[in-house]
Amino acid sequence: MTRRKVALDWRIGVFDARLLTFQQEPSKEDHPIVPMPLLVVGSVAFDSVRTPSGRAEDILGGSATHFALTASYFAPVNIVAVVGEDFGAEHLALFHGRSIDTQGLERAPGKTFRWRGEYSDSMNEAKTLDTQLNVFERFSPKVPPAYRESELVFLGNINPALQLHVRRQVPKARLVALDTMNYWIQGTPEDLKKALAAVDLLLANETEARMLSGCPNLRKAAAGIQKLGPRMIVIKRGEYGVIMFTEGMIFSVPAYPLEEVHDPTGAGDSFAGGFMGYLAQAGDLSESSLRRAMVYGSVMASFAVEDFGLRRTLRLTREEIDARFREFKSLTHFDV
Amino acid sequence: MTRRKVALDWRIGVFDARLLTFQQEPSKEDHPIVPMPLLVVGSVAFDSVRTPSGRAEDILGGSATHFALTASYFAPVNIVAVVGEDFGAEHLALFHGRSIDTQGLERAPGKTFRWRGEYSDSMNEAKTLDTQLNVFERFSPKVPPAYRESELVFLGNINPALQLHVRRQVPKARLVALDTMNYWIQGTPEDLKKALAAVDLLLANETEARMLSGCPNLRKAAAGIQKLGPRMIVIKRGEYGVIMFTEGMIFSVPAYPLEEVHDPTGAGDSFAGGFMGYLAQAGDLSESSLRRAMVYGSVMASFAVEDFGLRRTLRLTREEIDARFREFKSLTHFDV
Repeated sequence: MTRRKVALDWRIGVFDARLLTFQQEPSKEDHPIVPMPLLVVGSVAFDSVRTPSGRAEDILGGSATHFALTASYFAPVNIVAVVGEDFGAEHLALFHGRSIDTQGLERAPGKTFRWRGEYSDSMNEAKTLDTQLNVFERFSPKVPPAYRESELVFLGNINPALQLHVRRQVPKARLVALDTMNYWIQGTPEDLKKALAAVDLLLANETEARMLSGCPNLRKAAAGIQKLGPRMIVIKRGEYGVIMFTEGMIFSVPAYPLEEVHDPTGAGDSFAGGFMGYLAQAGDLSESSLRRAMVYGSVMASFAVEDFGLRRTLRLTREEIDARFREFKSLTHFDV
Repeated sequence: MTRRKVALDWRIGVFDARLLTFQQEPSKEDHPIVPMPLLVVGSVAFDSVRTPSGRAEDILGGSATHFALTASYFAPVNIVAVVGEDFGAEHLALFHGRSIDTQGLERAPGKTFRWRGEYSDSMNEAKTLDTQLNVFERFSPKVPPAYRESELVFLGNINPALQLHVRRQVPKARLVALDTMNYWIQGTPEDLKKALAAVDLLLANETEARMLSGCPNLRKAAAGIQKLGPRMIVIKRGEYGVIMFTEGMIFSVPAYPLEEVHDPTGAGDSFAGGFMGYLAQAGDLSESSLRRAMVYGSVMASFAVEDFGLRRTLRLTREEIDARFREFKSLTHFDV
């Protein structure tokens, strides 16, 4: 049976005019620079999570959701994902309230993807208790024509064949970042290699980077992964922070030392949202911007884990974000 | 039977004149500033180590040795420790060749302390295969009168009752740092608490900090330890770097991303040697100096693990040290 996809009629076009302004006249001083829009493909989900500090049932989650809502503090976001009939107007309102275009958010018959997991005391790794793919099972992401000029693209953690499919629909992208997980590294290594060969940046945790490269040493692992395609590797180390390897640079940011971590779910996608969001805002991919992007990613991840799901992210202000950015400077600065 | 201690006659006085100059005329511009001398008490040992990259037998090691040889790149060092009859002129020459005063290095009848251990693939933790305390068993550190004015003191990882005994012999110290281990935290908690109450800084790894405070969260652990006495806590996180907590500051330094780690033995004491050594060289305990000290400590630890025992440390140049310091700046710097 072929599943029928229903294109959502929830489109908003509010950013089109601003985008045209940006793309056609990026440097005119009488036009303020408007951030370029980001494109994200990934999952929208309802998560049920238990951590040592509590639990939450059926809260909005998924890689595209965490990424989009986080990145929306920096730039407009276009989202390509699928939801089911249980995805209501109140959920959609969260996107529309935060400058997220949902033209590419398909609604399909059935239920939205559901995930249930729990974290032990260390909070380092989620144990999956249940996964219901639901509408996600037959998801074939389609990039709406209005998104095909995207310059910054985040391929959230989905089947690498679908990631590659999306990659091919954005030929003008200047930076395509890909997130993945052990499931795809072990299960579909050939598809993943094809996808990696077509992207600029890989986001992975330490275990994934080692698994993908076969090297226990992170520096060698990064060099091995660069040979597969991505010229930039960002390795996420949870409570220890992140480290980025490019051809000419290694840059490391410690994690913000929080007193309480309530729910690590979505921290990696929040990092990606802050990272890519800042690059969109900056409008360039200079080394200096990449470094600041790493810090803004760390800032957003540090907020994300302070409460369950998207609760903390949704009640942020840009002032709080910039204040924590300055705290990262204090956390890491020394004079030569 | 009372063990007879034989004071070594291997004294060198080369720093005395410089010290007097420093202490009496610290700010005169026509006298170059000479670093204040450091005092270290700890172990001198012969180590036999096996790691995934090889093995070494009966090589010079011990906390005082690693600390002193590392710190000697920054400042003169006075060492209080005990060795046996098997500690030869060639070993002593290593100290004297690197500005280390051995007036406080006792020679006792019997053999020098010996440790045998191995590291698994992750290199994160040593497994002790054999410990022979030998002359260390009855060691009662005595601070020679010439060392009693010490301002910077490192109490290496030995019995906390002995650490306190040394602490009381240096009443004018401005910064006393203490290192310890799970063995003392679990075995002699009351003695350790007394020692902690008398020092300014604790160096501990993450497991030790959690064990000592009862708090899994590092920020809370540091706050808990501060209540025991030390106003500064440096938590060592191996391949992830170090983080320092003081009353008004949190400062984090990632580890240098090495391609090869050959032997982690002594990394913590090398960190301490670089940290305290830099403070001695700087001549002050300002926040700015403490931050740079954290980086110099990280620099020295990163060199220490590049070869077995003290091999890499002993063939360093100050130029290599300062070049890696600048690499740490590149590794961590971003513009606000």
